[in-house]
Amino acid sequence: MIIVIKPHSTPAQIDEVIAEVGKLGYDPRPIHGTTQTIVAAIGDERTHHTLESLNALPQVQQVMRVQKRYKMVSRESHPEDTVIDVDGLAIGGGRFVVMAGPCSVETEEQLMQTARAVKAAGATVLRGGAYKPRTSPYEFQGLGPEGLRLLQLAKQETGLKIITEVLSERHVEHVAAAADILQIGARNTQNFALLIEAARSGKPILLKRGLSEKIDEWLLAAEYILAHGNPNVFLCERGIRTFETYTRNTLDLSALAIAKKESHLPVIIDPSQGCGRADLVQVLCQGATAMGADGLLIEVHPNPAEALSDGQQQVDFDAFKALMSAIEPFLAPAGRHL
Amino acid sequence: MIIVIKPHSTPAQIDEVIAEVGKLGYDPRPIHGTTQTIVAAIGDERTHHTLESLNALPQVQQVMRVQKRYKMVSRESHPEDTVIDVDGLAIGGGRFVVMAGPCSVETEEQLMQTARAVKAAGATVLRGGAYKPRTSPYEFQGLGPEGLRLLQLAKQETGLKIITEVLSERHVEHVAAAADILQIGARNTQNFALLIEAARSGKPILLKRGLSEKIDEWLLAAEYILAHGNPNVFLCERGIRTFETYTRNTLDLSALAIAKKESHLPVIIDPSQGCGRADLVQVLCQGATAMGADGLLIEVHPNPAEALSDGQQQVDFDAFKALMSAIEPFLAPAGRHL
Amino acid sequence: MIIVIKPHSTPAQIDEVIAEVGKLGYDPRPIHGTTQTIVAAIGDERTHHTLESLNALPQVQQVMRVQKRYKMVSRESHPEDTVIDVDGLAIGGGRFVVMAGPCSVETEEQLMQTARAVKAAGATVLRGGAYKPRTSPYEFQGLGPEGLRLLQLAKQETGLKIITEVLSERHVEHVAAAADILQIGARNTQNFALLIEAARSGKPILLKRGLSEKIDEWLLAAEYILAHGNPNVFLCERGIRTFETYTRNTLDLSALAIAKKESHLPVIIDPSQGCGRADLVQVLCQGATAMGADGLLIEVHPNPAEALSDGQQQVDFDAFKALMSAIEPFLAPAGRHL
Amino acid sequence: MIIVIKPHSTPAQIDEVIAEVGKLGYDPRPIHGTTQTIVAAIGDERTHHTLESLNALPQVQQVMRVQKRYKMVSRESHPEDTVIDVDGLAIGGGRFVVMAGPCSVETEEQLMQTARAVKAAGATVLRGGAYKPRTSPYEFQGLGPEGLRLLQLAKQETGLKIITEVLSERHVEHVAAAADILQIGARNTQNFALLIEAARSGKPILLKRGLSEKIDEWLLAAEYILAHGNPNVFLCERGIRTFETYTRNTLDLSALAIAKKESHLPVIIDPSQGCGRADLVQVLCQGATAMGADGLLIEVHPNPAEALSDGQQQVDFDAFKALMSAIEPFLAPAGRHL
Repeated sequence: MIIVIKPHSTPAQIDEVIAEVGKLGYDPRPIHGTTQTIVAAIGDERTHHTLESLNALPQVQQVMRVQKRYKMVSRESHPEDTVIDVDGLAIGGGRFVVMAGPCSVETEEQLMQTARAVKAAGATVLRGGAYKPRTSPYEFQGLGPEGLRLLQLAKQETGLKIITEVLSERHVEHVAAAADILQIGARNTQNFALLIEAARSGKPILLKRGLSEKIDEWLLAAEYILAHGNPNVFLCERGIRTFETYTRNTLDLSALAIAKKESHLPVIIDPSQGCGRADLVQVLCQGATAMGADGLLIEVHPNPAEALSDGQQQVDFDAFKALMSAIEPFLAPAGRHL
Repeated sequence: MIIVIKPHSTPAQIDEVIAEVGKLGYDPRPIHGTTQTIVAAIGDERTHHTLESLNALPQVQQVMRVQKRYKMVSRESHPEDTVIDVDGLAIGGGRFVVMAGPCSVETEEQLMQTARAVKAAGATVLRGGAYKPRTSPYEFQGLGPEGLRLLQLAKQETGLKIITEVLSERHVEHVAAAADILQIGARNTQNFALLIEAARSGKPILLKRGLSEKIDEWLLAAEYILAHGNPNVFLCERGIRTFETYTRNTLDLSALAIAKKESHLPVIIDPSQGCGRADLVQVLCQGATAMGADGLLIEVHPNPAEALSDGQQQVDFDAFKALMSAIEPFLAPAGRHL
Repeated sequence: MIIVIKPHSTPAQIDEVIAEVGKLGYDPRPIHGTTQTIVAAIGDERTHHTLESLNALPQVQQVMRVQKRYKMVSRESHPEDTVIDVDGLAIGGGRFVVMAGPCSVETEEQLMQTARAVKAAGATVLRGGAYKPRTSPYEFQGLGPEGLRLLQLAKQETGLKIITEVLSERHVEHVAAAADILQIGARNTQNFALLIEAARSGKPILLKRGLSEKIDEWLLAAEYILAHGNPNVFLCERGIRTFETYTRNTLDLSALAIAKKESHLPVIIDPSQGCGRADLVQVLCQGATAMGADGLLIEVHPNPAEALSDGQQQVDFDAFKALMSAIEPFLAPAGRHL
Repeated sequence: MIIVIKPHSTPAQIDEVIAEVGKLGYDPRPIHGTTQTIVAAIGDERTHHTLESLNALPQVQQVMRVQKRYKMVSRESHPEDTVIDVDGLAIGGGRFVVMAGPCSVETEEQLMQTARAVKAAGATVLRGGAYKPRTSPYEFQGLGPEGLRLLQLAKQETGLKIITEVLSERHVEHVAAAADILQIGARNTQNFALLIEAARSGKPILLKRGLSEKIDEWLLAAEYILAHGNPNVFLCERGIRTFETYTRNTLDLSALAIAKKESHLPVIIDPSQGCGRADLVQVLCQGATAMGADGLLIEVHPNPAEALSDGQQQVDFDAFKALMSAIEPFLAPAGRHL
């Protein structure tokens, strides 16, 4: 770390910083510039006491971190792309995965129709919420265990893999029994108790980016899962919260490129949450594909206008089929194949 | 709700919207304006199917909500200020509560010294983290049960009430046994499983605002707790995430005024998290007090430069004493007393 | 507009709103719902007094706009895509325009080398700042008139069209004499005096989106130019300001799709400003191209490490050539050609 | 500046950075840490070429600035508070200035009534927009020169000083002839041509913070004015753009404390723009006063519901009188007097 000392500090004040750096286990190296002194603290920032607390000293202007905070998720520790094996289905490594299905599992008919439609159009994973995190306690909270049962049914018929969200530490076990992939949603991305519990299930985990999560915080959330023994993590950008109100969120497609640069984990894009509007989903899929996403997570409903949750962002079967055709020509130039 | 139909829509398209509104259980009332038609949907938005899914229809320009989504937390349902009784200590109703203590419980000596110092300066509740939500898995995660034991020790000696954060559904029971108030932190404010579990403990709950949580979402998170049978909730603004980097967060003091206007729940301010800098804590306390906060939550440490977490935002004993003096003259004109 | 009246308002309070709506020139239509009354105000919102001032009445909960505020820039007023003729070069209508060159014009050698290199790689417009809006008064402010002279020189040799930024109303005339396209930068996008002056020059205008400008505000800024008699406007998304710090700005590629949906004006993308990092420029160009951008604005410098401004986001000649190859396969599937 | 080199860089790559630092005029001092090398570049960052361009080198991880970028506005260069003399009226130095009046000058009657009312309640400066920056070209743009004439009339009768916004370089001269203080609005805070022109008028200048302007950018905008020979600048926080939609903007009261800490310039608060809602204005004034603001800028209108601009955020005469009483007890403890 680097500690910047304020201009006009006295030698005694500078010495106090140097002593404190040493006391906290680093080797201090002062450098006297034209107007200010800095102290470089030599030592591994990730295993030592943080020096950010030195900001508490009045003569300290700023403490700057040098090292990145994530290890296991970083490209440096693992230069090759991670490929996740979901019971025979590869995620990452050139294979482009399309996960599609309703926001919420509502009825057997709704789910089975959707499963058949998305499979026919090229999806290999069925998404569907059994437990739904809803802003209001008065909104539809999902079918719970019955939703999981229906997802299993759809898997049996279609052979699609199942991804579904887990909201509670106490649900991890039974959700993991029914799902091929556990989804950690945007609201729980720093719910570390849940991350650790999900890690322990051994299941592949899709980790969404939080609404206002910086990229390094997102990678550190993934680091929690790897550090708890589960390397099968892939990331999902799903829009961040900004001042813009035309869309529900602002899909940050640069985060896709950054996450793939900084980390070896696969990265997919959720355009449905990403914009919150069905009419923008296809064009965002085109962009994501061309930028090298490892897949897409798309909300599809037989009749979005009557959906029990987030109808405005779900596409119908025709629109889903059209978008699968639309992204096709972008796959090969981006180094991806279905 | 109000459904705005796009200009140049055909009568058949307008009729489709009207029919759909009726089908979803509302009484549709179309109004034909100079360029556009709107359909007012008469019915209780909080108990009916949402109409936002109608955005999925191509002729719909926008769906606008009329009613507020929260009920039990609203001023309309409960015009009087709620006063929470924490085992004899009132929160709300003119009484100004100061909760102070270290970010993390680190050692018995650190905690006991701090407890004595904050009590001497006027605090009535001791804060201290036993379980810490840390961005990186390699950072200090708190002392856990040992931290709770030390908090109990400090309570026995000083008589201060105890507030501490709960991070996991599975910890609610034993944290509730040791604490007088459960704190739900900013990262868990939409962790609904935890909110419900905490509600069931029956303990008073401090609900922090999330990093990018809109005020109505925050009130709806509180609504979850009330709707699960626990009326003893108070709110805490602790800074939101913005583009500004001088401070760690941007303390949104207008949220204090808004929450008190919209809701009957007490509202306190956390200036330490709110700015992330010890040198701004006092002045933010002055503002919060003058604006009618029901209290403050302040991080205090014997030696912030060596704190195991967030040293940069913790004030030392002298600074805490000074800020308690500084806010004193603002209390009475704001209708508050210690 | 729609005026939502608070629950429990008295008939007299409702009548006051109705009367005020009438007084301000609209035809008021009250609708009594289950818990609240709304008043629909019939009349053209764009030519009447705004009713947002009615929020000043204590019984008013909210005033909601129905109509969009822009007219001339909207798809509704002009369903066909606008194609701008820059002295023989088309912008829009399927033609994909690449505008490239240095952030600042620094020297004749730097500019001529760059002009030749970007032309060879496929650019048809040369960008280069002669007047630079710099955050600090101590930073390089551009060469001014000498920069314009060098741009003219480059045009003469290469035949490239010239785009350059105009910062001052008083410079419009001489900048317009030297440039084929006037650029209005992100900091001036609501500098209405400059927009009007630029409009009057009759030159094609590239209007960047402001750092925190909502899409409808950006379209209204374009409306200023059209309303002052100049239809030759095209839009440029260049990143918005968010909480993320890995990139300088967050490129909002959904804004591209939205602007093309709402408006008939061409839309291009500036990935260099959009992320502020040379290493992300190519992948953002891929995304923009696949999403149907009408072109790109890219910063290119012979030796970015020594550039006088924004070196970190400028690509060198090799990188520019590589990105031109990289976007090529995405053009046709997106309905574009060079 | 400090250049952080990526882990695993070769000695040759490190030497390239060292050489480049030297070439750009700094004295390079490499420090080899446990995992990475940094190069401290000794030299005055404010007068040398920026090293941020070194980010363009692939082996560079990050370039960090050590020095603050502003000089003349900083506390370090001028430790004492600046007091501005507006023709006999002091701004700063303990004197609390209240500037009040309508958003827009609409009619002689409206302005004169307001001038009398705000004077009677304790204001010493009359605000009123003659030129209005409006998001839409179809909204009321202000009375222009006639508005300035009315402001002069009000000054003659009441003796209040006049503050009004200037939008165009070409208007500076005649606006400066009619006004005691020139206001630079939030949209123009990085319109450097206007800042320089306003500086040259010699008039006191109120510089608002931009909608998404970081504090150091705001101080650098003020630096432009000082560097062009005009030391009579004071700052105005007026709300920043965030994700919150309950208020029009989020008033950042911590910016007040920061600006006063970093700079010697007076700082005032505009609660009207700051929240965009009349019902929050008083409580925000209370907070601003208690936090040590040097004054307030408040929108007041005889009949806000019929105002031609921003009626929703203007308070009427009774509300203004009430707020002046409400802030009174906070002045002395904050070290201020009217």
